[in-house]
Amino acid sequence: MSSRARLLLVSTSTTFGTGYLDHCAEAIAAHFAGARRVLFVPFALFDREAYAAKARTRFEALGFELDSLHRAADPARAVEGAEALFIGGGNTFRLLRDLRRSALLEPIARRVRGGMPYLGTSAGSNVAGPTIRTTNDMPIVDPGGFEALGLVPFQLNPHYLDPDPSSKHMGETREKRLQEYLEENERPVVGLREGGWIECRGETSFVLRGAPRARLFVRGREPFEVEPGTELAAWVCA
Amino acid sequence: MSSRARLLLVSTSTTFGTGYLDHCAEAIAAHFAGARRVLFVPFALFDREAYAAKARTRFEALGFELDSLHRAADPARAVEGAEALFIGGGNTFRLLRDLRRSALLEPIARRVRGGMPYLGTSAGSNVAGPTIRTTNDMPIVDPGGFEALGLVPFQLNPHYLDPDPSSKHMGETREKRLQEYLEENERPVVGLREGGWIECRGETSFVLRGAPRARLFVRGREPFEVEPGTELAAWVCA
Repeated sequence: MSSRARLLLVSTSTTFGTGYLDHCAEAIAAHFAGARRVLFVPFALFDREAYAAKARTRFEALGFELDSLHRAADPARAVEGAEALFIGGGNTFRLLRDLRRSALLEPIARRVRGGMPYLGTSAGSNVAGPTIRTTNDMPIVDPGGFEALGLVPFQLNPHYLDPDPSSKHMGETREKRLQEYLEENERPVVGLREGGWIECRGETSFVLRGAPRARLFVRGREPFEVEPGTELAAWVCA
Repeated sequence: MSSRARLLLVSTSTTFGTGYLDHCAEAIAAHFAGARRVLFVPFALFDREAYAAKARTRFEALGFELDSLHRAADPARAVEGAEALFIGGGNTFRLLRDLRRSALLEPIARRVRGGMPYLGTSAGSNVAGPTIRTTNDMPIVDPGGFEALGLVPFQLNPHYLDPDPSSKHMGETREKRLQEYLEENERPVVGLREGGWIECRGETSFVLRGAPRARLFVRGREPFEVEPGTELAAWVCA
């Protein structure tokens, strides 16, 4: 990844009791400062038209115009010409399938490495990683391979959820699932709780932002907590 | 599927407060009656040796000897010669990858269609369906395609979990995830709560057993509940 990459990887678009993108609105406005129009990727939800309308309303309130990629006559050209990119959440498998089908993975990765600011929420944060192997989503469609944009060197687990000590459910906890990931894979994972995001600068700076702590999963050691404001590079640039 | 197939597809191996396979022990003993040895597939967990030991202890208590497939010099031959098959739970992607790598999908499907009784728990139930597109598991490895054994005409969602009305978590509920599956796929899904299982006979009989109700997801209608004892064929043989 070139040193010009700038990404904001957000756990969830909406935290409990607040509106769409409210909790990270200031960070988004600062991240996209200098851009006038934002290109939105609505592929993770089925109803792209409704999703684009929702995103447009929100971004207009932040002072940006919004174009949705599903309306572009030539999607690759739209990516080439974009000032800023926002990939919204939904189902990660559907999102990755449609990015691959539309041959947009390479053009997006190239533009981000060249400095186009990238915002992802949930599934849109997942696909910024090397693979989608740490998504929480149901594999409702075959994405044609789990490799994703590879814009950061670590895996993301958005909506990270602590075990509920009162639960009688016997399905695996999130922590157990991520430990199973590490049984099969080398790359570290950031368990990003709702309300948190990662500010990525170039190849070597990945700072945790937002209210909650994050939980890091690194092969060969116990999972551990990091505080907001922490530079994660020492753990995630393996 | 031939009319000789007999499957017991169990939601979870262990319900809250009971031991391994306790809640369905009688049903398993009846299902495998006539067999002396059970062939166990431990591929869904990382530590196959420990998993096989646990399963062996349990099946010996039920009156069966147990051979684990990971110890077989010739796995395909072991499947050919098996009297009864048990595929245990864990990670569905890892299980399917290893069944495919070992070229065991076709031999297993053929033997089950020919009448070899099949028991699955959790991931082992998931892979009995046409695809693993309704698993809850994290895609920690690429299974080389989502198509599975196809022994029943419907999809399974084991460990089906009702929404928690007190939750402040914003990730998708299970119901929402399964509705997203139906946005992209035609086949019905049985949401099988912990404590439940499906008794499958031939091509046309799929009876819900165990304590809890199940939740059915059929394209074009609202999800609905079915009681234990219900024959599901009318909904799941689309």
